[in-house]
Amino acid sequence: MTVRAGIVGTGWMAAVHTEALRRMGVDVVGMVGSSPERTADRAGPLLPPPMRTLDELLSVPGLDAVHITSPNHVHAAQATAAIEAGVAVVCEKPLGVDCAETAALVDLAADQGVVNAVCFNLRYYPQNQNAAALVADGTIGAPRLVTGHYLQDWLLLETDWNWRLDATRQGSLRAVADIGSHWIDLTAFIAGQRVTEVFADLHTFLIERDRPTGEVQTFAAASVDRDMPRVRQAMSSDDAAGLLLRYEGGARGVCSISQVSAGRKNCVQWEIDGSESALSWLSEDPERLWIGHRNRTNELVEKDPATLTPAGAAAALFPGGHVEGYPDTFRALFTAVYADIERGAPSVAPTYPTFATGHRIAAVCEAIAESGRTGAWVSVDDTGPHATTKESTS
Amino acid sequence: MTVRAGIVGTGWMAAVHTEALRRMGVDVVGMVGSSPERTADRAGPLLPPPMRTLDELLSVPGLDAVHITSPNHVHAAQATAAIEAGVAVVCEKPLGVDCAETAALVDLAADQGVVNAVCFNLRYYPQNQNAAALVADGTIGAPRLVTGHYLQDWLLLETDWNWRLDATRQGSLRAVADIGSHWIDLTAFIAGQRVTEVFADLHTFLIERDRPTGEVQTFAAASVDRDMPRVRQAMSSDDAAGLLLRYEGGARGVCSISQVSAGRKNCVQWEIDGSESALSWLSEDPERLWIGHRNRTNELVEKDPATLTPAGAAAALFPGGHVEGYPDTFRALFTAVYADIERGAPSVAPTYPTFATGHRIAAVCEAIAESGRTGAWVSVDDTGPHATTKESTS
Amino acid sequence: MTVRAGIVGTGWMAAVHTEALRRMGVDVVGMVGSSPERTADRAGPLLPPPMRTLDELLSVPGLDAVHITSPNHVHAAQATAAIEAGVAVVCEKPLGVDCAETAALVDLAADQGVVNAVCFNLRYYPQNQNAAALVADGTIGAPRLVTGHYLQDWLLLETDWNWRLDATRQGSLRAVADIGSHWIDLTAFIAGQRVTEVFADLHTFLIERDRPTGEVQTFAAASVDRDMPRVRQAMSSDDAAGLLLRYEGGARGVCSISQVSAGRKNCVQWEIDGSESALSWLSEDPERLWIGHRNRTNELVEKDPATLTPAGAAAALFPGGHVEGYPDTFRALFTAVYADIERGAPSVAPTYPTFATGHRIAAVCEAIAESGRTGAWVSVDDTGPHATTKESTS
Amino acid sequence: MTVRAGIVGTGWMAAVHTEALRRMGVDVVGMVGSSPERTADRAGPLLPPPMRTLDELLSVPGLDAVHITSPNHVHAAQATAAIEAGVAVVCEKPLGVDCAETAALVDLAADQGVVNAVCFNLRYYPQNQNAAALVADGTIGAPRLVTGHYLQDWLLLETDWNWRLDATRQGSLRAVADIGSHWIDLTAFIAGQRVTEVFADLHTFLIERDRPTGEVQTFAAASVDRDMPRVRQAMSSDDAAGLLLRYEGGARGVCSISQVSAGRKNCVQWEIDGSESALSWLSEDPERLWIGHRNRTNELVEKDPATLTPAGAAAALFPGGHVEGYPDTFRALFTAVYADIERGAPSVAPTYPTFATGHRIAAVCEAIAESGRTGAWVSVDDTGPHATTKESTS
Repeated sequence: MTVRAGIVGTGWMAAVHTEALRRMGVDVVGMVGSSPERTADRAGPLLPPPMRTLDELLSVPGLDAVHITSPNHVHAAQATAAIEAGVAVVCEKPLGVDCAETAALVDLAADQGVVNAVCFNLRYYPQNQNAAALVADGTIGAPRLVTGHYLQDWLLLETDWNWRLDATRQGSLRAVADIGSHWIDLTAFIAGQRVTEVFADLHTFLIERDRPTGEVQTFAAASVDRDMPRVRQAMSSDDAAGLLLRYEGGARGVCSISQVSAGRKNCVQWEIDGSESALSWLSEDPERLWIGHRNRTNELVEKDPATLTPAGAAAALFPGGHVEGYPDTFRALFTAVYADIERGAPSVAPTYPTFATGHRIAAVCEAIAESGRTGAWVSVDDTGPHATTKESTS
Repeated sequence: MTVRAGIVGTGWMAAVHTEALRRMGVDVVGMVGSSPERTADRAGPLLPPPMRTLDELLSVPGLDAVHITSPNHVHAAQATAAIEAGVAVVCEKPLGVDCAETAALVDLAADQGVVNAVCFNLRYYPQNQNAAALVADGTIGAPRLVTGHYLQDWLLLETDWNWRLDATRQGSLRAVADIGSHWIDLTAFIAGQRVTEVFADLHTFLIERDRPTGEVQTFAAASVDRDMPRVRQAMSSDDAAGLLLRYEGGARGVCSISQVSAGRKNCVQWEIDGSESALSWLSEDPERLWIGHRNRTNELVEKDPATLTPAGAAAALFPGGHVEGYPDTFRALFTAVYADIERGAPSVAPTYPTFATGHRIAAVCEAIAESGRTGAWVSVDDTGPHATTKESTS
Repeated sequence: MTVRAGIVGTGWMAAVHTEALRRMGVDVVGMVGSSPERTADRAGPLLPPPMRTLDELLSVPGLDAVHITSPNHVHAAQATAAIEAGVAVVCEKPLGVDCAETAALVDLAADQGVVNAVCFNLRYYPQNQNAAALVADGTIGAPRLVTGHYLQDWLLLETDWNWRLDATRQGSLRAVADIGSHWIDLTAFIAGQRVTEVFADLHTFLIERDRPTGEVQTFAAASVDRDMPRVRQAMSSDDAAGLLLRYEGGARGVCSISQVSAGRKNCVQWEIDGSESALSWLSEDPERLWIGHRNRTNELVEKDPATLTPAGAAAALFPGGHVEGYPDTFRALFTAVYADIERGAPSVAPTYPTFATGHRIAAVCEAIAESGRTGAWVSVDDTGPHATTKESTS
Repeated sequence: MTVRAGIVGTGWMAAVHTEALRRMGVDVVGMVGSSPERTADRAGPLLPPPMRTLDELLSVPGLDAVHITSPNHVHAAQATAAIEAGVAVVCEKPLGVDCAETAALVDLAADQGVVNAVCFNLRYYPQNQNAAALVADGTIGAPRLVTGHYLQDWLLLETDWNWRLDATRQGSLRAVADIGSHWIDLTAFIAGQRVTEVFADLHTFLIERDRPTGEVQTFAAASVDRDMPRVRQAMSSDDAAGLLLRYEGGARGVCSISQVSAGRKNCVQWEIDGSESALSWLSEDPERLWIGHRNRTNELVEKDPATLTPAGAAAALFPGGHVEGYPDTFRALFTAVYADIERGAPSVAPTYPTFATGHRIAAVCEAIAESGRTGAWVSVDDTGPHATTKESTS
């Protein structure tokens, strides 16, 4: 039986979701943007048919799921509408702009029994699935030290602009919320330990930027019309950050986050040093996992069914040496989510990131923001009515 | 208007083609296998609807194109049927098992005026498109030395088996035809020079193999049922080869080809040293192009619109740092081909590999086979009635 | 005229210094160990002739310099004796076990006018000299974000032991003092900014170790006699640390330090992201410097006279592609120091790390130790009578 | 007892040998150049004391060895004089300009019983020693396919000049003799199989060069005085080459050699694919050895005593992670040779490259030159009176 999905948002993430769903044989029935005009402007063969409103989309007979790829500040309202319509929700991160929003969504989704997921897609590089399985198997002993970075350069210059620089649409944290959240989720997932305490040094290197008066697409900074009028705007959100983390199982973390690192287009790196061995991965070389040993030769695991754990192999779509990349992580993530969608209900312990994960990461980000303000260690607090919800992995 | 395509073949390449077409919004109307039973067995959401015969597929109203992903020995007959039905043909390499087949197809496609392409997909890694444009722009001066390798390990062991080891379905050349052809096409494309003369040392390291009596999927060597009865079979096709090449513009080539290199899952590397600068690329790190200089710092080009040539940027689907891989090359290749399909006729000078390319490479392979037999340099001969056809790029 | 030097200490660092000096044509006249017996035991062609006491060494006619490679707690007394004898001192880091010692040495050396240096040898990889010159030239704009790590694995296991685990000989900080100090000095040198404020999270993952009752050489952990009796000992020094740093020019730092990272034998990495471009270097690939750009291709600088700055070229001993390594950094560092020794007095602004540098880094380490205890940001305080001494580079 | 050595030649190789010997505690008593004046000009602390003639050097009482680092065409005469004086000879490659010279030297050294060595220093990167031991231990099964390259760029331009471009001093082969010989020796050493048959395609891309009328140092091409008068000179020696090789044990080789590859300063790479596993090494990353496997994870061996074979560990001077480079290979090679020199006679089966090795490689080069002329496979012939001499390793 054909599975049906709809897309909220019309930007490049809408296309990424659409492609991944089509590859899986899902019928992507429609797309809804911020206005019918904008949606119509973006329509074409690479995107689903335009629809005028979210209600119109939610009224499609047999609709199974909605994918939310709109700006952050409307995620919660759109997810709420979809859940209330009884369809599964796959939401881009962040799930909401604060923990109040995310906690409410966790509860609502649980009450309605709908499948729910947040797109921490980095987990679905096959080697990240593989790493999590190796840690769970005890391969590295007890995780101790978690280090790494997430570096980009698309906001390096004063003339770079994007809606993420507008705190009313992004929230007050920026680099940490936008990309740091990915790193935190990924390492917590692999280490199998949640972050419980944080210390942050937040850096606003560009204290003013030249804001264009029109709209700018993400990752299109360089292509902003040079003749568009601009206004000088004071900035307070984080261009970069240094984070110290404590994980619930005793691991400690050190992480650098930046959107102003020239030459680093989108570079994620992590290393987890355990009591026996260590693992390391770099997004620019995603097909290989490094395993460090003390008394025997280090290993370099290829993404090859013959040498991956079952979890790693399950996320691999192609034979070894046939590089999988960014779009394939969505396909692998959605494949896991749609297994539940086809069953009609969430698993007891989903292997994919759920709303509970999204809420947990929101709570970590709030703690980071507070630590940035106070210069003190802050505990992560995700308690509340939803706290009884079992989170999937971190 | 919706574009419609059909798939011939039901293996993993059929899935690769189907996914790429679906991502582009093409309606993939049906799939035909070697028998209706086998096709039905393979059917599922990741593949198009099963059809019983090629005729049934070719009779679908409004069908625009057929993609041929079947074993090599039936390519020519299937392509012929499709051309005669007036639909475009996108054929997996090799286009045919010998130059007689490929020459006839070049002529037939030209006569019928149908769009035709052969899947030398490696050209469509963005950095390979970028490299070709840089060479064409004179960035490296005159290409002089072309070196590199294509190494795999999936046929390392005596117990490995696949239809490609069966000369009646593969042809007499194996590693050279299967993967060497990719390397030769790729370097000729980037250097902008055709191969005119070859010297080959062909190696059959495993002179006997244990052939299972049932069917084995490509890249599934390790998973062959261990209880399947096997028979000892003498082998004569090439496990590996050393190739020396002469290109029409004066460049010289040195290439290693192997399907028995332990640990190399699917590793393609090339370097083109010119009179001023040099370029190098490695499939395991596909997002970066190395540019070597003598008197200034070397460069490492990221796949980023800000730093790619227009041709390179045109093949890039995602922003810098968002890795593109194997499946994306098909999407980029098909996008180029389908521009012609939507126009209804081949371009005067297609930028994608055509049947003429497939024929040219078949002629190079025949010369290599002859050199391997004779131990002498052999000129590439692709003359004949089709020789007046202008080849696209190499 | 022949230059004469003597060595204090008989371990592997004594051999490293001896070799580097001999390569430069320096006459290494003698070696002094912790006892005449131990010195005699270690004597051989790879080390200088044994002497019984430091006084005997300092009495050698025409002695120009003493190199101190003994355990940390005796550095200050030995350096004092040498300075008072009027010979130049080249001291392994740390210069002393606390700031009181190091401040006194800075003052004494200044009073006596002797050439003085501390062996922060990492600065003398040609690409690190090159990087410092590029930053000074404004190549990357204003340095903003300084990130990286220094990871080793030789103290991973409970059975690993070395004098550095004994706080009476090492001091209370361990990983930070032993290797973190190198990273801090190196990045301050390259960024051209001193560290002014620190926040530290210090980790003692192994709270007990099995201490052998005999002596163990550095980096020889694995070879400790397995039959040597051991006693269980509680540990309090840092196996690893997360550091946040603030530099005087406004740059911010994030650094991971560890001696318990399996598979990382001795891995130093840094990246400095500036307002225009970025630099990065990895000790495991020391011959290349990465330069990241936003709007043009990234660069990969080879250690080649044609493409290095003059400062970089000055530290390169061999042509491009002829790898220089660990021992060559000592030769390059000593070459800079001995230019002053041959002149007979320190330069006004030495380019090499001096006692003032050693004192500055000791002050940073004390601030780190205090931050680790208090959980608060701590300012680096190197004031005192010596504070008027001009430090070389950081 | 002090060991004494002398150096013939005054260029940068003379300094490389001198440094390595001094590090070992050898007394380097003197240096002899092409003329007393030139020798005096080059004298300084980095080189041994100047002597007027080879006879003067050979008359030094207690002289144990002579190192020959002069241009190729005088190697044989100088080595002959030294052998006749009864001292050991360590000769830079090539041992002589043709097989007649090298054969005579093999016989003479054997007759006189002197220790003899040829500086194929690449063998003494610890990972190359390690690789040879792993192959000998059967780790990779039977070696099958030997591939790789040796690429430089210092002769890329028409204005580049050096004595090696002068056939009267270099011999008729150039890139193959100068650097290809290293690659051939290295792979034969590691594979444990001698090269028995060759096919070569030799390339002279620059058919004319601008020869300066004065002297030019090796690797100093870029620094030639721009005002030096030049004359146009026709060139016939090989800028680059493609080589196909057959080894005595059944392995096949494919190799690219070039001195005109922009950006490649001095890049050696080899891979040996065996019947079970594979090994690969790159000179630009010399501390790591890659081991490829089919059915388990690949390995990346660090230069660490805990994970190296005894032979690999014996060539390692420093702990893991402390990079060893070009100068250290000479120190390790000489350490092996001087063990025999201190014993006073060659070992029965030396582990280092001997005159017999030098002769064998000269024979391979002659076969390559002949194949280049004839376009046919040529067998390597090193027979003659010396043929009974047992060669060390290949």
